[in-house]
Amino acid sequence: MMEPFRIALAGLGHVGGGVAQILLARGGELSRRAGRELQLVAVCARDRAKPRRADISSLPWIDDAVSLARVDADLVVEVIGGEGEPALSLIRAALKNRKAVVTANKALLAVHGAQLAILAEEQGVPLRFEAAAAGGIPIVKGLRQSLIAYGIDGVHGILNGTCNYILTQMEATGRSFAEVLAEAQARGFAEADPEMDVGGKDSAHKLALLSALAFGVPPDVNAIRIEGIRHISRADIAFAKEFNYRIKLLGIARRTPQGLDQRVQPALVRLGTPLADVDFVFNAVVAHAGPAGPFTFEGRGAGEEPTTSAVISDIVDIARGERGPAFGWPATELRPLPLAPPDAHVSPYYLRFDVRDLPGVLAEISGYLSREEVSIESMIQRGRNPGEPVAIVMVTHECSETAVSRALEAIAACGKVLGPPCMIPIEAS
Amino acid sequence: MMEPFRIALAGLGHVGGGVAQILLARGGELSRRAGRELQLVAVCARDRAKPRRADISSLPWIDDAVSLARVDADLVVEVIGGEGEPALSLIRAALKNRKAVVTANKALLAVHGAQLAILAEEQGVPLRFEAAAAGGIPIVKGLRQSLIAYGIDGVHGILNGTCNYILTQMEATGRSFAEVLAEAQARGFAEADPEMDVGGKDSAHKLALLSALAFGVPPDVNAIRIEGIRHISRADIAFAKEFNYRIKLLGIARRTPQGLDQRVQPALVRLGTPLADVDFVFNAVVAHAGPAGPFTFEGRGAGEEPTTSAVISDIVDIARGERGPAFGWPATELRPLPLAPPDAHVSPYYLRFDVRDLPGVLAEISGYLSREEVSIESMIQRGRNPGEPVAIVMVTHECSETAVSRALEAIAACGKVLGPPCMIPIEAS
Repeated sequence: MMEPFRIALAGLGHVGGGVAQILLARGGELSRRAGRELQLVAVCARDRAKPRRADISSLPWIDDAVSLARVDADLVVEVIGGEGEPALSLIRAALKNRKAVVTANKALLAVHGAQLAILAEEQGVPLRFEAAAAGGIPIVKGLRQSLIAYGIDGVHGILNGTCNYILTQMEATGRSFAEVLAEAQARGFAEADPEMDVGGKDSAHKLALLSALAFGVPPDVNAIRIEGIRHISRADIAFAKEFNYRIKLLGIARRTPQGLDQRVQPALVRLGTPLADVDFVFNAVVAHAGPAGPFTFEGRGAGEEPTTSAVISDIVDIARGERGPAFGWPATELRPLPLAPPDAHVSPYYLRFDVRDLPGVLAEISGYLSREEVSIESMIQRGRNPGEPVAIVMVTHECSETAVSRALEAIAACGKVLGPPCMIPIEAS
Repeated sequence: MMEPFRIALAGLGHVGGGVAQILLARGGELSRRAGRELQLVAVCARDRAKPRRADISSLPWIDDAVSLARVDADLVVEVIGGEGEPALSLIRAALKNRKAVVTANKALLAVHGAQLAILAEEQGVPLRFEAAAAGGIPIVKGLRQSLIAYGIDGVHGILNGTCNYILTQMEATGRSFAEVLAEAQARGFAEADPEMDVGGKDSAHKLALLSALAFGVPPDVNAIRIEGIRHISRADIAFAKEFNYRIKLLGIARRTPQGLDQRVQPALVRLGTPLADVDFVFNAVVAHAGPAGPFTFEGRGAGEEPTTSAVISDIVDIARGERGPAFGWPATELRPLPLAPPDAHVSPYYLRFDVRDLPGVLAEISGYLSREEVSIESMIQRGRNPGEPVAIVMVTHECSETAVSRALEAIAACGKVLGPPCMIPIEAS
């Protein structure tokens, strides 16, 4: 056997605690797999006195996270989280000290990933982040190492378990977004401040990483259009089902002739396609790998054990000597691609208009749509009570996002609709 | 950049031709990913004169496969196929000459895998076989490197695209096994001699590899119970659908308290679970990874491009310096586990009895079942024409396979049923 592989661990929350526990409880088997003894040599967290599941009393405790970069270790695991300090300084210091780094920190990598990857390669040490996108699903390694022969045309998926839980539960119970969010918060499936999840930003962080791996671009969350799920109503979920679709929050990155199309937004996915049956906190990613694909990966996208599983796989890979660039390409060769303009996006759309049930309303709405060459494939109008509010719901043929938006602006301004019309793209898987 | 990485390729059929073509057409990008130039330095196939898509005229041609092990190369790719010679001698000779080996040869590895892995480790070179199980799906790497933190409790999946095509097509068209098989053969989705596929042996080869990766056992196709799909009728497919199931040929390997349960057999999977919607030539694998799982991987399981994709990923991994044992554990530590006896298998069952519609038949069948404590959850009996043949179809509660088998033997012997009763387990995913 080779020399022991020494690991310093920063962060002892759910994930850090899980990593410590697995290294202590299953270190023997993992060391056999790694071909060398895995040693946890130092730990660091905010509060030393806090009770923890793993018994770390015999391990050297470091109070200051950044100092962990100076301990005698081969690898630093950063599971502190947060886009800024002290995680950023710790990772930088560790790389500068020629220590390998494993992190689960999507927010940080979605902003600083390219720069850190360059530093890692200058120093000749690996930087790994399987846990940063889609939790336990090995999609980072899949894109970096497995699906490379024909290149990737597109990658999309359900990247946020909180949103998927809320949408699944809204459908299952018929309750509203606000009610289900409150219940998710009470059950620990949503944060007290849920904006990072339900606003779509967390999905965008993960998508930025997947996009970098797929297309060789520097991860850049600012190059992603983001729309959350707050405006999705139980009516939309029920109508979508009548058309044989379910509504999912998707992260989508794909090459188009007009440039890279990168979006986080709710979309309708057809029943019977791989993403439609991904329920509750599960995540799934579809990778279009030229004539070899598509490939679909599904699993738990968050939580202690899936995230721990991903961190451990990175640790063992590095202990075994796995090298190669963080994003699959040499970091100095990551190059931004031109971004596709909004009108590059062409798909069928789901449209909902709340109107007062009066003669001529449908004709007027149809007129605005046809003026923008948006043509209707099918329509539902239910509950005819003259003069009362009623929903008109349509699925269009393929049309450009800008055409639909222009038509909806005109319709919103015409005075016949109650509240803003709803538009949701339909995504082919 | 490091020194070029020199590749010798044995076999220029669909897969070998695909590998050659990708290395020639996309070698630049793959070399950047690998951090060193990938050079195809020698090729070998049965017939030099045969026209091929990739232009290999400038490459050194070797007539005798085993001689390829002596060329000046870092890696030998074996895509000749076949469980015996010359593939086996080539792989042995290459490893003995300290060359890394990439193979797509499931039949060979399912018999000789453990021995070859030991040889590879003695010689200090990697042996890789991502293409040997589930084609382009990166499940070999997933089990070897990604889902290791909590260990694997079970792995099961749809491992043969020909069988899945036939079953999907039988459902879609309502045609019989024989008709659909003939059509699949005409369209190139089934071999002239289809027994390896429809008899279940090909799935068993792949399952033997997945089982080795999951449980640290030596791959051993002889430790797998194998049942094919020839006896599946269109009636079974239609009845299964009425009960909200589809019939799939599954490979299943799982730990049970009584030992390792390894089977290839048709099973009913519930609509809405990940395997139910895997259609036509697609494959899918579900890995139960303790509290981190389950994980589902879906994609193309056979064909030139998916298999090429898997071979290329192994080549690039090895060029990057990836080492580590072939089956995830040191090969000398692979140990057989006790095998579970048939009565360890407990599940609900689908049962079909073709009977003459006479008074008392149902009571008699029910009596034999209840004597073995097999209890019925639901039942369909359709088309009552006194005295005419009719199918009685049942779904049982959980019961042991041996209890069902005993009951069916007694029922078959009682003289009231026409032809052998059909039993198919229902698998929870």
